[in-house]
Amino acid sequence: MLIVQKFGGSSVANPERVFNVARRIAETYKAGNQVVVVLSAQGDTTDDLIAKAKEISKNPSKREMDMLLATGEQQSVALMCMALGELGYPCVSLNAHQVGMTTTSIYSNARFKKIKPDRIQRELDLKNIVVVTGFQGVNRFDDITTLGRGGSDTTAVAIAAALHADKCEIYTDVDGVYTADPRVVKSARKLNEITYNEMLELASLGARVLHNRSVELAKKYNVELVVRSSLTKAEGTVVKEVCKVERMLISGVAGDDEIARVSLIGIKDTPGKAFDIFATLAKKGINVDIILQSIGRDKSKDISFTIAETALADAQKVIDDNKERWGIERVDYNENVAKVSVVGAGMASNSGVAAKMFEAMFNSNINIHMISTSEIKISVLIDKKDMHKAMNAIHDIFNLAD
Amino acid sequence: MLIVQKFGGSSVANPERVFNVARRIAETYKAGNQVVVVLSAQGDTTDDLIAKAKEISKNPSKREMDMLLATGEQQSVALMCMALGELGYPCVSLNAHQVGMTTTSIYSNARFKKIKPDRIQRELDLKNIVVVTGFQGVNRFDDITTLGRGGSDTTAVAIAAALHADKCEIYTDVDGVYTADPRVVKSARKLNEITYNEMLELASLGARVLHNRSVELAKKYNVELVVRSSLTKAEGTVVKEVCKVERMLISGVAGDDEIARVSLIGIKDTPGKAFDIFATLAKKGINVDIILQSIGRDKSKDISFTIAETALADAQKVIDDNKERWGIERVDYNENVAKVSVVGAGMASNSGVAAKMFEAMFNSNINIHMISTSEIKISVLIDKKDMHKAMNAIHDIFNLAD
Repeated sequence: MLIVQKFGGSSVANPERVFNVARRIAETYKAGNQVVVVLSAQGDTTDDLIAKAKEISKNPSKREMDMLLATGEQQSVALMCMALGELGYPCVSLNAHQVGMTTTSIYSNARFKKIKPDRIQRELDLKNIVVVTGFQGVNRFDDITTLGRGGSDTTAVAIAAALHADKCEIYTDVDGVYTADPRVVKSARKLNEITYNEMLELASLGARVLHNRSVELAKKYNVELVVRSSLTKAEGTVVKEVCKVERMLISGVAGDDEIARVSLIGIKDTPGKAFDIFATLAKKGINVDIILQSIGRDKSKDISFTIAETALADAQKVIDDNKERWGIERVDYNENVAKVSVVGAGMASNSGVAAKMFEAMFNSNINIHMISTSEIKISVLIDKKDMHKAMNAIHDIFNLAD
Repeated sequence: MLIVQKFGGSSVANPERVFNVARRIAETYKAGNQVVVVLSAQGDTTDDLIAKAKEISKNPSKREMDMLLATGEQQSVALMCMALGELGYPCVSLNAHQVGMTTTSIYSNARFKKIKPDRIQRELDLKNIVVVTGFQGVNRFDDITTLGRGGSDTTAVAIAAALHADKCEIYTDVDGVYTADPRVVKSARKLNEITYNEMLELASLGARVLHNRSVELAKKYNVELVVRSSLTKAEGTVVKEVCKVERMLISGVAGDDEIARVSLIGIKDTPGKAFDIFATLAKKGINVDIILQSIGRDKSKDISFTIAETALADAQKVIDDNKERWGIERVDYNENVAKVSVVGAGMASNSGVAAKMFEAMFNSNINIHMISTSEIKISVLIDKKDMHKAMNAIHDIFNLAD
């Protein structure tokens, strides 16, 4: 089998952990597999480099930031190959230039375009374990880019897709995808399988096991993903197109309290107003999640929407700049909100899910501010203080622990 | 003018120094010049990376070591561009891949082959200050190599040659090339000019201002080198093919006490013996400097030679392995020796230089063990304890302070 294995920064944070991971890689190789390893920068390396840059400039060039940060992964792969060499295994480290990892041109947040698998394939043919820098790419100017959050996962999936690997294993500090965050919901249960779509919903809803882009890419190229622990031998969770077993109604509960609600109150009710508002926000790179529109008084309406807490300052600026033009009476910002969601491929054909979820909220005396639904998920906006209680209530009412 | 400027690791060791160098670069740029900057890794970065590697493996793969070490310069150039950006100057950092810096394949000690100046030229045409990683290259396998000691100087000269730069300024912690090490000879005087050949002799004789390879390359491509201080505005020393002013007899005195003498005593006097001995040593990478052969007793002879102190262990092993075959009676090793040399293009046509040098030794009561001469230098081997005394005596007798 050809297996791609990705290890995060904490898994290779010091020499002891580097050797632990090296031994894990060696086991897979010894079992007769071809192995490509994707690594993040060691431990705090990326944070340390960012701190170094901030000493020089408060707002450093993003191009130069990528040039700087990319060194973290390059150090990781070189050290890992030294460890594998020390254990007696043939191996070679490669950076983004060497594997022809092409991305879009946007520094610090580039997207994967394509990869030339020639060099990796040649090294595999030579029986080498190939250790590749995650997180980084090269754009059409031949400049180094980085892929943004979760970038190393994306690198691993991209390589797995290009090489038609049998599977892509993402090693993390948890042993798989759970029905809810085990730190919040004590009875949370590990899933053996989950579909790409469910994983996408869970990822975007605040279950930070896999980053969305890597799951999207896996879905696009039908790469079998496995999320598993770098600390134990547990089987982990398989993410794939269709799950073999009869799907449960609900696969998981997710909570996200790093969001804010924005309410635009008393907007003059003329056509195209909503389009104008959301197009302007989008142009400034502000992602809007749940949107609720209600008729107000006197031919005016109210629009509420949620955004990431980190985008709040930018959103406030955009709204201040356009308030006059949009004819808004009053703006209200609320950071004391959280979003709780249930996800499950099974709910598409079952109209009772929403009702059951609301019942759980009612039984726990939790007030719902907004509601959003899709084919495979239902989200409610509630007070931040109620989030953990809501997650547990939903987990219980759907019997997810069984 | 097109000027290449090279700054060493200590010049960019912390944010304050980075900004000092950035301002220096900016001045050259503001004066209307095109500027290419070559940087080493910051301060102790390279040593820290070597220490990290040693934690993993006592004898790490040289390929992986180069992959690891090359990150140091990449961090340097990114941070410098952030500083230049902060000061408001347009700039771009480039690594060995990006500038097409091709070297031989030998990891950790590669030699410069060629450079594709296209990318640098394009950035210069865009009015950018171009900041390039020193010390590193790419070999024919598309792998990263490093150039060994003094590698960043070589990078600077190579770029200056490829771009037909008007000059290549090497910034160091001294303000030029002196008639002797100022720490040893108080009256040592800075030279305004020196020829490539004299500089080569001085460099190889222990005056560690410029590395030989970079001077050789400058000579080959006729690149005007300037050695100057990164701390002061002093003019520095120009290194070029022919010096304008009437040359002094002697341009400098150099001392090197990191050498050892090896004496092979009582070698059977058969033809080809010396060739066999020195060919065997060369094959093991041991550079021999001064050689002295004398007829011994009973149809046997003695051969003495000097090597770098660091090569002594290797040399001992080679000699032990071949002693029988060579028919050597006895071997004597002496680390308490030093080499003192006078260098000057003027001495080629003046036979009195050697006599005057020996006179200085005699006056100071210093015993000479071996002598070696070339067109532009005379070296003597003396006791290590006498080195500083000898350097001062020679400096005085040739009136180098005037």
